[in-house]
Amino acid sequence: MSPVDTQAQPSQPVKLRPGNIQLDPQGKLRHFLAIEGLPKAVLTKILDAAESFTTAHEHREKKIELLKGHTIANLFFEPSTRTRTTFELAAKRLSADVLNINISASSSSKGETLLDMLRNLEAMHVDMFVVRHGSSGAAHFIAKNVPPHVSVLNAGDGSHEHPTQAMLDMFTIRQHKPDFPSLRVAIVGDIMHSRVARSQIHALNTLGVGELRVIAPQTLLPAGIEKMGVQVYQNIDEGIKDVDVIIMLRLQRERMHSAFIPSEHEYFSLYGMTETRLALAKPDVIIMHPGPINRGVEMDSAVADGSHSVILQQVSNGIAVRMAAMALAMRNPDGSSAS
Amino acid sequence: MSPVDTQAQPSQPVKLRPGNIQLDPQGKLRHFLAIEGLPKAVLTKILDAAESFTTAHEHREKKIELLKGHTIANLFFEPSTRTRTTFELAAKRLSADVLNINISASSSSKGETLLDMLRNLEAMHVDMFVVRHGSSGAAHFIAKNVPPHVSVLNAGDGSHEHPTQAMLDMFTIRQHKPDFPSLRVAIVGDIMHSRVARSQIHALNTLGVGELRVIAPQTLLPAGIEKMGVQVYQNIDEGIKDVDVIIMLRLQRERMHSAFIPSEHEYFSLYGMTETRLALAKPDVIIMHPGPINRGVEMDSAVADGSHSVILQQVSNGIAVRMAAMALAMRNPDGSSAS
Amino acid sequence: MSPVDTQAQPSQPVKLRPGNIQLDPQGKLRHFLAIEGLPKAVLTKILDAAESFTTAHEHREKKIELLKGHTIANLFFEPSTRTRTTFELAAKRLSADVLNINISASSSSKGETLLDMLRNLEAMHVDMFVVRHGSSGAAHFIAKNVPPHVSVLNAGDGSHEHPTQAMLDMFTIRQHKPDFPSLRVAIVGDIMHSRVARSQIHALNTLGVGELRVIAPQTLLPAGIEKMGVQVYQNIDEGIKDVDVIIMLRLQRERMHSAFIPSEHEYFSLYGMTETRLALAKPDVIIMHPGPINRGVEMDSAVADGSHSVILQQVSNGIAVRMAAMALAMRNPDGSSAS
Repeated sequence: MSPVDTQAQPSQPVKLRPGNIQLDPQGKLRHFLAIEGLPKAVLTKILDAAESFTTAHEHREKKIELLKGHTIANLFFEPSTRTRTTFELAAKRLSADVLNINISASSSSKGETLLDMLRNLEAMHVDMFVVRHGSSGAAHFIAKNVPPHVSVLNAGDGSHEHPTQAMLDMFTIRQHKPDFPSLRVAIVGDIMHSRVARSQIHALNTLGVGELRVIAPQTLLPAGIEKMGVQVYQNIDEGIKDVDVIIMLRLQRERMHSAFIPSEHEYFSLYGMTETRLALAKPDVIIMHPGPINRGVEMDSAVADGSHSVILQQVSNGIAVRMAAMALAMRNPDGSSAS
Repeated sequence: MSPVDTQAQPSQPVKLRPGNIQLDPQGKLRHFLAIEGLPKAVLTKILDAAESFTTAHEHREKKIELLKGHTIANLFFEPSTRTRTTFELAAKRLSADVLNINISASSSSKGETLLDMLRNLEAMHVDMFVVRHGSSGAAHFIAKNVPPHVSVLNAGDGSHEHPTQAMLDMFTIRQHKPDFPSLRVAIVGDIMHSRVARSQIHALNTLGVGELRVIAPQTLLPAGIEKMGVQVYQNIDEGIKDVDVIIMLRLQRERMHSAFIPSEHEYFSLYGMTETRLALAKPDVIIMHPGPINRGVEMDSAVADGSHSVILQQVSNGIAVRMAAMALAMRNPDGSSAS
Repeated sequence: MSPVDTQAQPSQPVKLRPGNIQLDPQGKLRHFLAIEGLPKAVLTKILDAAESFTTAHEHREKKIELLKGHTIANLFFEPSTRTRTTFELAAKRLSADVLNINISASSSSKGETLLDMLRNLEAMHVDMFVVRHGSSGAAHFIAKNVPPHVSVLNAGDGSHEHPTQAMLDMFTIRQHKPDFPSLRVAIVGDIMHSRVARSQIHALNTLGVGELRVIAPQTLLPAGIEKMGVQVYQNIDEGIKDVDVIIMLRLQRERMHSAFIPSEHEYFSLYGMTETRLALAKPDVIIMHPGPINRGVEMDSAVADGSHSVILQQVSNGIAVRMAAMALAMRNPDGSSAS
């Protein structure tokens, strides 16, 4: 009769592989919490699924009934209209019902614990949680505490990971330059505080990128970054020489007050992307940014809106990649993969 | 030409039975405002309909197109994310369109009266209002002022009634112990201020429960409660002796400040549910709570999460029971029952 | 590779007629920004489409799958629950997905420009923007900056126009009095600040109304109003003599503080509609108001709820007219008309 007992003893016993809560016993995606630890085959499967959704959209099959009758709850502990909107659109295009839970308004006001809130949403037959949280590991904690038929997608946790953002970047790169081993990629900006950068580095290494560079001032580089399989450049003009792909990170303006960088003007002159600077990269370089752009800080408008920019393609691909992650992670009532 | 005239003279004349606005001339559910006054046959019909939706869900028929094209408006004058969410999910699973109206934000800002707001929503072809309000009788007032094709569900009005909550409790009891006449049931806690308790007492009596007890300190018992067909206990150890079902009420923390109870600690020691205390009831007793639980005040966690608890089943059943109430109360344009 | 280039060179080149961004080369509705400049044939087409949706609703075809898979974003820079709700219901009845964007919460917090926000929403495959803004010309500005497959509906811009409101008024008039050339119509109230009045005057003149009067105190009449093809009355008893249709405008209470009118009481005695006053018009006059009514300021309740009032029919018609505008303006990916 106890819900805890029920959850611990599902009709179909599911054993997670030790050390990787993200995969089911068949090696299929169960939760999508981090790029770190996922094999190349799983990443490729996400990219392939996203491609099929992109093709479907071009053929005017805008509505896909794959998740009809499933309920997805957006649990955003950190507000982000932009990211929530992309997950909401992805869920709706798969015909799922979407529940947006305003955490501050709902749970805390009546003194409910996080686990009680999860138990209640599960009891309402919510099938998937999309979690954004200011603390690293929050989505992982939730994933450890859901029953076998519920899956969890990480929409950004602290400075840890933001795996769907990284995968939409991989998808965008693959559209233009499908052979990862032959690519030289540079990530520019606040590596230290960026969950996006951490996810990108893991994804690019897992997909076998030829060479991966990070470009940042010393104050924005985490200690021991070299161990992540990257080459470090503090000089951007050296760092972007002959690269195929440049990924600009967003500069959080609040860093300024913490004295990580001297001023926006100074940052732009040292690390901002201009057309002159861009000419140092390969002639067919593509330039990416997770948005929203601080024009005149990370890059000038000529670059953001120029012929090398794929920034808006990233946004479009964000819908397809989130549809892919949702479709692959969704579970049947017995905990088996629904797709 | 006048909308008032139009509404007063529908093409199919509908006469409400004197004294019971909740039923149509055929005795079918028209509004769901209160348990009091509804015959046993109607309550049983709601339970049976809820059962069919539960079965449908187990068979993966998650989406039912019964209310496709109908519009349901949640009018929440009192904020409650939790209750609104269950009504919203119930409506979506029946394929209805849902409109969440934030009352403070919409009506009052432009000085619109409540009746004008209702008239406008009806003119937009809203078919059903789900109403939650801090004043007793609010849903009843609205029901008296809607045209024949619109129905009203009460989602809690002041300290009057909360009929869908009571019915999900009845449904949960019936799942475990279907023979009401043989049951001994105890309701524990703040009877005086609880609209849930009022609805439960009416429902249990209508369904013919064998014996009904209420357990509370004198300060939390309404005057004349004995006339509602209950036996009163102030000592919980005596009150739960040999009962089949225990329903704990939620303690509103604001009561503390009003000196109804001395302290949370004192309340827990006198009325809180522990495993030791639970052993006084029947061996197969089930324990219920409307949520969210104040752990360590109304009950300790060992009971809340223990083998006798059916608390999360109540939450699941809340969706099915609300689907049932919506499906049964929905009207055709001529005011006849749509189901 | 640049999104700007891509958007500027669609596969099917689309050239807008000089001077009228609202029509496509075939003369079909592309954006709906203002009544001014639209030919009678387009207005009539909107009315005819609205009529077909009204008929469909009466035949219980509540859900129409015309825009299934399309996404409509409500961009409300000025809050209006009422207007947003009618657009949202219209979109849902056409089976479109709806995105409500809270502008203050989303765009400005991260310093994103309006154009960047639009580009991002377009990249997420939003097909239509419904725009409400406090500045005149805002919807027009946005329409000039969207790619060929995206269309824009004006839901009110400053004191410029509110075209869907005017068209629902035309639709309501046509239901009761279909022969515009034979009609005498009076608009009463704050002409100067009313975008609704501006749109109504253009619509009535384009549809060939017999005689159009505006009735207001000197302080609420814009300079040069006579050039818009109206007759001006400051005395309401003279102005409504023998009219077929009276359109009351809503009085913004904030005007009081700006000394445009002396007091609500004074305004009601000079311009408020009473049954006595109404007797001066034709015996079968209809009286209209965009809502919400200030009872006792613009009209008394006997008129608002009386047999000449068609105010709630206006609200119902608002859904059908917005469905019509959405269906007609929606584009295919190549920029051609989707309907």
